[in-house]
Amino acid sequence: MQLYNAAVSGNCYKVRLLAAQLGIALELHELDVVDRSDRPAVLGQLSPVLRVPVLVLDDGRAMFESNAIIDYLAEGTPYMPSDPYERQQVLAWQFFEQYEIEPNLAVARFFQIFGLEPPAGLMRQKQDAGRRGLEALERGLTGRSFLVADRYTVADISLYGYTHVGAEGGFDLGPYPAILAWLDRVASQPGHISISG
Amino acid sequence: MQLYNAAVSGNCYKVRLLAAQLGIALELHELDVVDRSDRPAVLGQLSPVLRVPVLVLDDGRAMFESNAIIDYLAEGTPYMPSDPYERQQVLAWQFFEQYEIEPNLAVARFFQIFGLEPPAGLMRQKQDAGRRGLEALERGLTGRSFLVADRYTVADISLYGYTHVGAEGGFDLGPYPAILAWLDRVASQPGHISISG
Repeated sequence: MQLYNAAVSGNCYKVRLLAAQLGIALELHELDVVDRSDRPAVLGQLSPVLRVPVLVLDDGRAMFESNAIIDYLAEGTPYMPSDPYERQQVLAWQFFEQYEIEPNLAVARFFQIFGLEPPAGLMRQKQDAGRRGLEALERGLTGRSFLVADRYTVADISLYGYTHVGAEGGFDLGPYPAILAWLDRVASQPGHISISG
Repeated sequence: MQLYNAAVSGNCYKVRLLAAQLGIALELHELDVVDRSDRPAVLGQLSPVLRVPVLVLDDGRAMFESNAIIDYLAEGTPYMPSDPYERQQVLAWQFFEQYEIEPNLAVARFFQIFGLEPPAGLMRQKQDAGRRGLEALERGLTGRSFLVADRYTVADISLYGYTHVGAEGGFDLGPYPAILAWLDRVASQPGHISISG
């Protein structure tokens, strides 16, 4: 399979991490995340949203949205529950991730690691909203080993993607002991790879 | 089933709309979307994210995140495809909705319909990002009757929720002919109810 990828992206990392754990080989096509001028030419026929990751199957069919891609790959494996209620919980955490974690932690990290100047007031807004997201994640993980069904699933992969690099966007995870313990559990799963590896 | 609901919310409307089309009776518990001070007391035991909708099954199990709720309800019905690739496309559009449509169209609409003063610069940012989202949706609908599999699915319900009330947030849908034609097709589906009905 071919992955249109950005090495720095936590969304792309989700796909690389699950593929590694499933033993799926990926041919990577690297895209720039700052200069996006080539996106229409490279991704225009593959995705209406012109963002990475995009996964292209061996038969040429393309997929967009990181969480939807990993759910497709995980179907029928231990990383996706078969119980309907547990599947609902997996999706709920993944939608939460794209609504409250990614738009705050990833955007703050983007400006910080590339040394770019954010619009006035944006970083403060991202910090406040990101902290509310982390508080919700802390509530969800308190008393649990993993987000759903007490075992490692794609929900954990989705939330791990940007949470584990929160410090790169200026987020202090110290106040969230359940998150910190869970990050260690996720990183110790068989076949785990780092975002840079 | 019991639905913790806000009549004005496009996210809650998705659940009411699909429930109506599936013939599922809902007992509604209405929550305020401006004064949210009762959220921890009312939703604290039901959802880590303290947002509506929350659906509570007859056995007491609770669910959060609108798109994850409707996917649970749609499983095994014509509103959710069984083909793995089509299911991936449904999820991709739903994640796109929570990332590029809801945060822009819903937030702009919220400030406008309640006459609240947004933080400086926020409305302009929401207008610009919302237009980019609508352009992606227009690309996805061009040449298609519905988003996935050429038939009405939960992907259409998810995207319809806030797109059809875009004007209430100041979005002009005139430049998007594929979206306009699709809105009419969705509204003419059997069992359709309006957001206020």
